[in-house]
This record gives sequence, structure tokens and C-alpha cells, in this order.
Amino acid sequence: MNIKIMIRVHAWILAIEAFFMIPPLLIALAAGDTPAIWGFFGTIAIALLLASLMSYISRNAPRIFYAREGLVCTGLAWFVLSGVGCLPFILSGRIPNFFDAFFEIVSGFTTTGASVLSDVESLGKALLYWRSFSHWVGGMGVLVFFLAIIPASGRNDGYMLHILRAESPGPSVNKMVPRMRDTAVILYSIYCILTVLDIVFLLIGKLPIFDAVCIAFGTAGTGGFAVLNSGCALYSPFAQYVTTVFMLLFGINFSVYYMLLMKQIGAGLKDEELRLYLTIVAVSILIIAINVFKRTPDTGSAEETFRHSAFQVASIITTTGYSTVDFDLWPTLSKGILLCLMFVGASAGSTGGGIKVSRVLLLLKSIRRNANQIFHPHEVRIIRMNGQRVPEQTITNVHGYLAAYVMIVLFSFLVLCADKANFSLTTNFSSVMATFNNIGPGFDAVGPTSNYSAYSNLSKLIMSVDMLLGRLEIFPILALLAPSTYRKG
Amino acid sequence: MNIKIMIRVHAWILAIEAFFMIPPLLIALAAGDTPAIWGFFGTIAIALLLASLMSYISRNAPRIFYAREGLVCTGLAWFVLSGVGCLPFILSGRIPNFFDAFFEIVSGFTTTGASVLSDVESLGKALLYWRSFSHWVGGMGVLVFFLAIIPASGRNDGYMLHILRAESPGPSVNKMVPRMRDTAVILYSIYCILTVLDIVFLLIGKLPIFDAVCIAFGTAGTGGFAVLNSGCALYSPFAQYVTTVFMLLFGINFSVYYMLLMKQIGAGLKDEELRLYLTIVAVSILIIAINVFKRTPDTGSAEETFRHSAFQVASIITTTGYSTVDFDLWPTLSKGILLCLMFVGASAGSTGGGIKVSRVLLLLKSIRRNANQIFHPHEVRIIRMNGQRVPEQTITNVHGYLAAYVMIVLFSFLVLCADKANFSLTTNFSSVMATFNNIGPGFDAVGPTSNYSAYSNLSKLIMSVDMLLGRLEIFPILALLAPSTYRKG
Repeated sequence: MNIKIMIRVHAWILAIEAFFMIPPLLIALAAGDTPAIWGFFGTIAIALLLASLMSYISRNAPRIFYAREGLVCTGLAWFVLSGVGCLPFILSGRIPNFFDAFFEIVSGFTTTGASVLSDVESLGKALLYWRSFSHWVGGMGVLVFFLAIIPASGRNDGYMLHILRAESPGPSVNKMVPRMRDTAVILYSIYCILTVLDIVFLLIGKLPIFDAVCIAFGTAGTGGFAVLNSGCALYSPFAQYVTTVFMLLFGINFSVYYMLLMKQIGAGLKDEELRLYLTIVAVSILIIAINVFKRTPDTGSAEETFRHSAFQVASIITTTGYSTVDFDLWPTLSKGILLCLMFVGASAGSTGGGIKVSRVLLLLKSIRRNANQIFHPHEVRIIRMNGQRVPEQTITNVHGYLAAYVMIVLFSFLVLCADKANFSLTTNFSSVMATFNNIGPGFDAVGPTSNYSAYSNLSKLIMSVDMLLGRLEIFPILALLAPSTYRKG
Repeated sequence: MNIKIMIRVHAWILAIEAFFMIPPLLIALAAGDTPAIWGFFGTIAIALLLASLMSYISRNAPRIFYAREGLVCTGLAWFVLSGVGCLPFILSGRIPNFFDAFFEIVSGFTTTGASVLSDVESLGKALLYWRSFSHWVGGMGVLVFFLAIIPASGRNDGYMLHILRAESPGPSVNKMVPRMRDTAVILYSIYCILTVLDIVFLLIGKLPIFDAVCIAFGTAGTGGFAVLNSGCALYSPFAQYVTTVFMLLFGINFSVYYMLLMKQIGAGLKDEELRLYLTIVAVSILIIAINVFKRTPDTGSAEETFRHSAFQVASIITTTGYSTVDFDLWPTLSKGILLCLMFVGASAGSTGGGIKVSRVLLLLKSIRRNANQIFHPHEVRIIRMNGQRVPEQTITNVHGYLAAYVMIVLFSFLVLCADKANFSLTTNFSSVMATFNNIGPGFDAVGPTSNYSAYSNLSKLIMSVDMLLGRLEIFPILALLAPSTYRKG
């Protein structure tokens, strides 16, 4: 493993992160928020100092990246980004505990949106902006983003392919265009255009410009950090509908948009994953709406019932985590559906988390094949998706993913159960589901009106790692933690 | 598919089931329990009448069984047995609702031990005996049992292999001895000897003979139906220790006993699954004992703490489900560990349910391989168990099993959440875990001092199917329910 090249990449990352902190620094200056000014100023200084030092050390690094370095960078970069990204919270004194601050920014970059704060408004606008912006950066994969803007060396494509694979949620990245840099640029263009559209519609929905930008960042990254203590409850119904629609749009596989752009409209709309995703959304909204109608003060009228049901379904399946009502007060059926949606998650190749709709689809097809084989043991059946044969290796990988997923849930659940907070089984289980699947709020003591502050530092660290495992699809982080990675040979 | 031969097999099954009802009929006669007398007498009459009719219809059935008929029989026989086995409850009027009675006897044959009764003692001794005896029959696989005593035809071996595979829990049945009938006889000898030993020790522990026999039946089958409303709480500490030890013994892979009998003591004791099983048991007892010590009135002394912790761990990991205390009142960590033990279950090739320790072991090995492959993509790694290479097909099957397991849990959980009882998420989730893994009691509203009666008929039916899915390791029942099974070709 070439250490120098990794130092060089991380120097770039720190420099760009410092650059990203200029807008919140300006907001802090405009608001005359002295602790936040020092928080961002101090962090920028530290980041640039480190970046210069690292750049100097790695001045004669080779210019060719190999897959191995790329993969280690993928995992490591998120820890480095988060380690520096949490400094403004600590230096400003607004979140003095390191584990709290780390949890909060990991929750941002991984687009989870789980918070340790009961009063988010007291953070001040600069830190609120930084939190929401971290969702937007994290949404499409931090490293791909950086590499798209790092000067071209002509040899980055293989490297980027590896990182794109690691950072793009879902079982497979279609090789849509031959050059990775071009793919990244197209994906980011779609991402930016949708974000801007979201902001425009929210402004029409009478949101203040600050709220519109931050909420759009959280929607685009399927993050879920809000800027008001009341979440999205006090926004206009129009703004809530806009957010519902955009959450759903950001939960769709971006290759569908690519196909639509390429005028392959038929293929795009016939995508099996898209159809299953929309079916799950529609059925869930219908059942929840029937279930909650007139059962809570928020769902007295048909319009309110539909609006809140649709908002909550979109928010959970896309793993965004915004809320307009306290769905922890809903009947068991609605909560059970939301819990299952946490597991399913959004589409592969979107900004959302969870197991992903396409993996669920492949698992169901594979189960059907296994059941058939009991009576037809000599029949060779091929699993197809969108008419194409799915390689057996993909099926194996999806099964391996599920196995790792289940074991991580069990392990994390046990650690949280050992927490001195002695929360209920529901709280601990939903905490794991809500962080590992990058959602945000869970049920019971971590419901939409509560937060994660009562957990111990150890539990917060485990949940921070869970968020990273969920965002990077488990194996890059597992490999980073495995001893065999550092063995010679 | 040859229908006649299936009718013939089921005629045999009904005749033997009628024969099994003679002891409870005698108990009812001795106790002068008129409703129970009529219940058993009526059921025996119906079963024999049906058996004669079916025997007449299938008088010229071929004498050769094929795998396909064998597999359908495996699934179907359990439904037929349960459909007739629940009649004594209904005819005696002690459990008048069909869905309740069906749930109760499926819970018996599948060795689950989940009950719909709040006052089991009011069933009377004859029906209590029948309930417990159903555990004992169900424990080692109903059909293998019947085939071991059906007259030999010389061509049954392949047939029996298929059924043995379907009915024996765990990823693989070792071909321990060439002839299946011999294997079955050896396994049943071990099973009977252990059961008798258990009864003897319980009698030494001052249990009444009726209690000793019934508790031993439930222990051997890892069932969990008790004969007192207080479960095992009022038995002597000695009897509780005896039950703990025998539950653990019946949770061990029976091939280990076979190896010990064959004087392969080294290989038997080095078995990886056995070691992991005993390690999980020891660690769980230790953590729970520390966690509950002096926290509840039942665990004031060190001895009490150890006894109840060991009993409950043994009861849950072996999926028996007896209880000496209300573990629903224990702290969250202890409950969380028990919930995870429900998932893990006992060893393959034992009478217990759950995912099985060996599957968990293979899943962990497979996850480690996947993590390693990220950095060493061209390295071919073989998964070994007990020094032997594990075929890739076995790994694939274990992964497929997990996928089906997870989907069934999710589906059943959603159905229970829709129940009019509107139970908590914890209740519904633990109900699925406790029935699907053939355990018995769950948490919250289905904890050890409660029962399943408040659920609707639909939910009880779903849980009955879950118990069968769990007992027959999913795919034989799934195949029975799949439309493709009945297609020609």
C-alpha cells in the first residue's frame, strides 16, 4: 500500500473541506455569532495547516492510484472528513462533547439526520447550515465529488470506478458511460438541477430562503436535519407536498434520470426497481392513511391524513427522516409498516440508504427460485431483472450483504441494550435501524420528537460506525476494520 | 405426482395418531373426565374411519415412493396430523374455537409451546398429556418416526433420506450410516434413552410422575408446554437444574452423540458447532447473571441468580420455552440477549428450532470471506468447518435460508401489526420470533406469564403456519404453497 498517495488525497480533501466552511463562516459573520465565527475560523485554520503539512510530506507521491489505495481512501476519508467536520461544533462550544459532535457530523455526512440535540435552533444559523450542507455533500458520495473536481491526471478512471462502486448505494453501478469522470459530471448535474428546483418550489411555498436551502440540502441527500425544533410541522402544506415529491424523486435510481435524458423513456419507466419502489410507496401510503384517519389530532381531515401519511412514507422509505407529525403516536400497524420501510430503503443508485429496493427484489426472486428447486431440483433457472440475466455473482453478493446486515444489526442492538440508559427493546432496535439505514428518527425514546443524547459515548460511537457502515454499504468499512487488510502479501 | 401413494401414507399416519391417543384416553377414563373421554374417543373413531376409507381407496397403490411424493407428504402430513390432533380439544369443549385448537396442537407438534390458554390446569390431565406428548413426537420429525415403524419395503431408503433431510433441522444431515432406517433407529434410541434419564432425574427431584413425564416430553422435543399455570417456577431447584441440563443436551447435534457412541470422542468434542453453542450459552448466562443479580425479587441470592439465568438461557437458545421466572421483567440487556438467542436457536440435527448455530457459524465465516475479498479479489478462499471443506452450494443454501427467514419475519410481523389487538411493536415482533423459531413465550403482551389468546383468528393462523415453516425449515412448506408445484411438467 502506498501511504504517500493516500496522504496526498486526504490533503486535497481537507483543503476542500476548509473551502466548504467559508459559506458558514460568512453566515456566522453576518449574524455576529462570535462562538460560531471562532469555531469555523479555527477549523479552517487547522484544516489548511494539516493539508499543507500533508501536501509537503507527500510532495513526491506517484500519480497513479491503484484499487487498493482507492478502497482504503474510501473508508478512511469519511472518518477524516467527520473528524475535522465536527470541530466547529466543539470549538464553538455548542456541542462540547467529542462523541456528540462526531455523532452529529457523521449523521450529517452519511445523510442520516439523527441528532443528539433537543433544541436545534440554539445551534445558530451558521452551524445549522453546516449540518445541512454535510447532507448535500454526503448524498452523492464525498470522494466521487472530490475526484470530479480534482484536476484530471488521465489515469484516475479505474480509481474512480472503484470509489464510485464503494460509495454508490446499491448492488451494481451500471457502466452507463465509458468515462467515469463524465458519469460523475452527469450525475452531479442532475443532482444540482433537482436541488435548485426543490429550493425554487420551497420558496414558492413561502419558506424563508435559509430554510428552503437547508431543507433542500437535506432532501437531496436524503438526510433529514431540520432547522426548526418542530421539524417540518410548521411549514405550509404546499411546502410539505413539495418536500414529499422531492424526497421520492431523490429516492429513485439516478440511472433512470440518465435514461430519460438519453430519451430511453420506455426503458426508464419500465425499470423493475422503479415500479416496485413506487408500488411500495403507494400501498404504504394507502394502508397508513386508512389506519391513522381520525385516530390522531393531526389527521382529522382527509387532506391532512393523506399529506402526513405520504410525507412520512416518503421520508422513511427514502431514509430522509423529516417529520411533520409525531408518528411514534400512530397505531401499531402504521409504525410496523414504517419499520419495514426502514429495512427496505430507497432505490439503488439513489442518495438513500437501507437494504435497497433492488436488493429486496433480487432476494424475493432468489427465494422463489429456491422454493421451486425443491420440486424441480434439476431445473436450471436464471434470475432476470429488466429482461437481463442477473449474474450469479450478483445474487451471491446480495445474499452476503443481507448476512452482514443482519449480523451488524444484532451486534449493535446488543451493545445498545447494554447501555446504562436501559431503554426499551423497541427504542434500541429502532435506534439501530434508524442509524444503520441512515434514516434519523426511530420509535419510542428516539422518536421524531426525541433525540439520541441520552445514550452513552460508547453507544454513540457504535451508532456512528453503523451510519458509516450503512452509507458505504458495509464491506469497505468492514475491510478497513479487518486485520487481514494490514497483513503483508 | 402419485396421489394414491400419498393417501396410503396418510392413512398410516392417521392410524398411528389414533393409536397414540389411547394413553390419554386411558388417563381420561382413570380421572373420570367425561368431556376428555368423549374428545379422545370421538377423535380416535374419526381417525380410524378416515384411515380405513383412505386405505381402501389406495389399496392398489404402487409400493415405490419417489422424492416428489415424499416431499409433499412431509409438508402435508404435519397439516393432517394437526387437523386431527386438535379435535380432542374441540370435541371436549375445552378449546371450542378451531383456530385456537389448531394453534395449540401445531404449537405442540412443532415443539413451539406457545399457548392460547391462560389457565392450562383447567385442560385436565388427559389433554395436558396429549399436548406434551405432541412435543415428544414432533421433536424428532413425525414422518421419520412413522417410517421407522412402518413395515420395511426395501425401497424406502431414498424416500426416507428426503424426509429426513426435510424434517431434520439444520443445513445438512450427515450420512452417518449407509441405511437410513438404521440411522433413524439409532437416533431414536438416543432420544428415548435421554428422555427416560430425564424422567428418572426429575422423579429424584420430587416431581409427581405425571409432571415428570410431561416435562421430560417437553424437554426432549424442546417444546415447552408445562402442566402447571406457574410453568416450572414451583418445582424444586434440583428439578430446575435437571431440566436446564437436559434442555442443553437436547439442543446438541445428535450426530455428536452418535460419534461418542462410535468412540470418536475427540472428533465429537472438537465439533465447531458444539463449541460455539456451549460458548454462547456460557457467555449469555454470565452476562445475564451479572445483569439481573439483585435486580428482581427472584434473583436475590447468587444461587437463585445463576439458576434462573442458566434455566432461561438454556430454555431460549434450545427454543424450549419453559420459564421459572417472568423474564419479561428483566432489564433490557437480558431481554435483548434472549431475543438474539431466539434468532440463533439450537444446533443443527437437534430437536431445537431457530436459524441454528451451524448456520450462524457459516454466515460469519462467509461474511469474513466477503470482507477479505474486497482487498484480495483474486484470492480463492475455501470455507472450512471441522477441518472439512464446505461445498459452495451449502453456503448458498444457508444464505438463501436467511433471506427467506428475514422475509417471512417481515411479512408475519406486518400481519400481526394489522391485528385488531393493536399490540406493541415489541409484542408483535417477539410473537413472530417466538412462534417462527418454535420457542413459545415472547415479550410484553406475550411474555411468559401471558398467552396468545388475544390475537385474531387470522393472526393465529399465520403464526400456526410460521411454526410449521420454522419446524420444517421453510422450503418444504413454501414449496407446498407455491403454485409451480402443481403445474404439470
